[in-house]
Amino acid sequence: MKNRVVILFTALFIALAVPGALFANGVEDASDTMETAQAKYVFLFIGDGMALPQISATEAYLNYQNSSNAGVRLLAMSQFPAQGLTTTYSADRFITDSAAAATAIACGQKTNTGVIAMNSSATVGLKTIAEMAKEAGMKVGILSSVNLDHATPASFYAHFKTRNDYYEISRQMANSDFDYFAGGMVRLDKTPEGQKNAIDMMKDNGWEVTTTRSQLNTLQPSDKQVYAYYATSFTRNSIDYTLDQESDDITLAEYTKKGIELLDNPNGFFMMVEGGKIDWACHANDAGSSIGNTIAFDDAIKEAVAFYNRHPDETLIVVTGDHECGGLTLGFAGTQYDSAFADIGKQNMSYEAFDNFVIKPFRADNPNGSLADLLPEIEKGFGLTNLSDYEMQLLETAFENTMLDKKERAKDEATYLNYGGYEPLSVTITHILNNRAGLAWTSYSHTAVPVPTFAMGAGQSLFNGYYDNTDIFKKTAAVMGLGQAVSMAR
Amino acid sequence: MKNRVVILFTALFIALAVPGALFANGVEDASDTMETAQAKYVFLFIGDGMALPQISATEAYLNYQNSSNAGVRLLAMSQFPAQGLTTTYSADRFITDSAAAATAIACGQKTNTGVIAMNSSATVGLKTIAEMAKEAGMKVGILSSVNLDHATPASFYAHFKTRNDYYEISRQMANSDFDYFAGGMVRLDKTPEGQKNAIDMMKDNGWEVTTTRSQLNTLQPSDKQVYAYYATSFTRNSIDYTLDQESDDITLAEYTKKGIELLDNPNGFFMMVEGGKIDWACHANDAGSSIGNTIAFDDAIKEAVAFYNRHPDETLIVVTGDHECGGLTLGFAGTQYDSAFADIGKQNMSYEAFDNFVIKPFRADNPNGSLADLLPEIEKGFGLTNLSDYEMQLLETAFENTMLDKKERAKDEATYLNYGGYEPLSVTITHILNNRAGLAWTSYSHTAVPVPTFAMGAGQSLFNGYYDNTDIFKKTAAVMGLGQAVSMAR
Repeated sequence: MKNRVVILFTALFIALAVPGALFANGVEDASDTMETAQAKYVFLFIGDGMALPQISATEAYLNYQNSSNAGVRLLAMSQFPAQGLTTTYSADRFITDSAAAATAIACGQKTNTGVIAMNSSATVGLKTIAEMAKEAGMKVGILSSVNLDHATPASFYAHFKTRNDYYEISRQMANSDFDYFAGGMVRLDKTPEGQKNAIDMMKDNGWEVTTTRSQLNTLQPSDKQVYAYYATSFTRNSIDYTLDQESDDITLAEYTKKGIELLDNPNGFFMMVEGGKIDWACHANDAGSSIGNTIAFDDAIKEAVAFYNRHPDETLIVVTGDHECGGLTLGFAGTQYDSAFADIGKQNMSYEAFDNFVIKPFRADNPNGSLADLLPEIEKGFGLTNLSDYEMQLLETAFENTMLDKKERAKDEATYLNYGGYEPLSVTITHILNNRAGLAWTSYSHTAVPVPTFAMGAGQSLFNGYYDNTDIFKKTAAVMGLGQAVSMAR
Repeated sequence: MKNRVVILFTALFIALAVPGALFANGVEDASDTMETAQAKYVFLFIGDGMALPQISATEAYLNYQNSSNAGVRLLAMSQFPAQGLTTTYSADRFITDSAAAATAIACGQKTNTGVIAMNSSATVGLKTIAEMAKEAGMKVGILSSVNLDHATPASFYAHFKTRNDYYEISRQMANSDFDYFAGGMVRLDKTPEGQKNAIDMMKDNGWEVTTTRSQLNTLQPSDKQVYAYYATSFTRNSIDYTLDQESDDITLAEYTKKGIELLDNPNGFFMMVEGGKIDWACHANDAGSSIGNTIAFDDAIKEAVAFYNRHPDETLIVVTGDHECGGLTLGFAGTQYDSAFADIGKQNMSYEAFDNFVIKPFRADNPNGSLADLLPEIEKGFGLTNLSDYEMQLLETAFENTMLDKKERAKDEATYLNYGGYEPLSVTITHILNNRAGLAWTSYSHTAVPVPTFAMGAGQSLFNGYYDNTDIFKKTAAVMGLGQAVSMAR
């Protein structure tokens, strides 16, 4: 038929082997006859837990801020010229986890949940696209808003049977030949007794380690490896939720901008940037924090777009999610056909800040306190006023549970459905706030709905269509001229 | 940049006027310099209430039937070469309804919810793409699995301030110059006392009206207008849910196949086919019925694909949804990361059949009956066995509500959240069954998440990307060479 662009790929599978590990992804390449583009500068943005509901809720929220009309105000990513839908299942489960999903994206092969860049039986390492880029002479950066030894970033530089061994993963990070790590810390608290922690290892290995904005800002391009983070106070070694950030906090966009400056070189670069806290917010069913962090993630994408505008012919930006999280939907039974995104705008802190800075001290200081004592804090943090009898009843029950020691709390199914593993009062507050806005959740875990993928730049049209997360590796590697041969025909 | 296909459109807006109505959509056309294709045969499939969760749940279910591995088995629509994401909001609400959504798709302009092919103030009619096709000499068919005077089909042939006046809409249908209506009945029960019903009007107007498969099968192409339906017993004048169909029921695919045969002519045709009962199943939170009807909708699409294979250069098939319904997600808090689609396979009847054929007679005959009396029927209809204490408690409470007269049932918020406006026992059964499978719902109404759009054939690449439902009209009209001028640039 006359309008279809026929893209032909030569199919030539080769096996790659590197010293010390056997890589078995049968890495492939595409020499297509139409898409002659090859990208020298490649950005891969992964919104952890970011699927269509997360993006669309953010776009509706941004529209409410700027218009009284119904509608959406598009994020930068949604304005990319190419867009696809991507299935996310792992080798062993319909609902994936971040390890299996990131391995699929990084290596082009399905693996079991929990496995970091190895095959399903965790017997053979899979070479990652970041490692291939490094071997091809490009500089490589790995950025995340969560701890850098977390599953998503780890799947680009480490190979291990389980995501749960943070120390082993951070050890591999310290021994990586990559050029730039930035964003969250590593889980120093997981360092075994008597062992050297990963940051000290990095320093021993000659890495430049920065922990403040002024240190970050003074960095100049050099051959020195860089690890940049900012030690935060409470949120599991990650960058604070945007709602909780203060002036010293360094944003994902800042790390991305500096990364571009440090990595830019005549041989090109590959940069993976994870918006990791979208996922954490969604696990906790906190839409305000998810929306804030989706905007922060999009701000990082805008830095890549600014670079693209200077190098449009040689740059590829791919944005995807690894899976949905929380079962977020843009409609709630109680509000029926109505939405009220203004309510989300009243939230001033994350659920986690409320846990740490309100509930924890209150519980310690007021073992016989009542919900009424906390209502002013709930209003201050989340704008919740004019509570209905039904909402008050939900809060009262949650408060009673929150005031119990964790071991004393009910373990029945209804209690889990109401609170997951979260602080009962906090998660009830975000449930009420989100539901008022016309948003709702079905899970504290991931879900399996496909995620959107957006692309701009060299080879972008390859990213149109309906495909699997393993295809993101194949398409990106093809545009980078890495590996050999795969049919990407649909 | 070198790889981007630059599509230029001439921008020339013209106003169209037809006798008896003033149309004000400023209908537009695209003369693009790259996409020279013009489609002579155009199919527009609208899955009512069908968004990504509905499609993906169906694809996971089909995979379970054919494989023990995690994954998906793609429907025909998901294999189309072009795919986009489509925002659905109406002029007055973030969460749309079928009238505003179908008007946007049919006329390229946002209107208020409830309005059928008129502007937001319901003062000016908007010419529909089906009417334009008819004026251009093409034959036109409008098909739906629900009553033909329902909002979605109505928005292609009628113009009225409210979707709720079924009699007025069916009157406009009877006076339409279209060639083929098929699928559901009209709401004869809404005919005012002493007035002629729409089917009698059609007969007076010379339409061939068929009500059985054998009548349908004997139809031959002619200039006679045809209305084909099958009078079903209970489901609001629609085609029965697939789970409830018997051998005499005529499927949407059969109506589509016959429609192709009747409409095929040298001047081409436009056919709109709605999968309307996906929406109804999702309002009721019945995933099994939604999945069955999504498969039936895809079967109708396959008939269009078969036609496309005979006329690949002159055919365009577009598949979209008008909005999501029910807030369906592919994960449930209680099952966490697990899914069990085999459970959905145990369902043998729709919620509505259970309402009509089990609950209604039971309530009438056994005013003092107990849930235990109905457990065998619940197992037979939905495969629910080994009920947990928690599930039994949900069923007991629902049963008590179901046995009450509707007027006596509680009207509080918790009751609405549990049952919506549905039969408490039926909706609790599907909630339990769906949740066991790893599916969950957040609403009995629509939600606002964007829907996927798929396209195959002439001009297909226009349907890649992230765009609004009004753009579906613009893109389709452009490929059909209808109207004048619009910029579809992103």
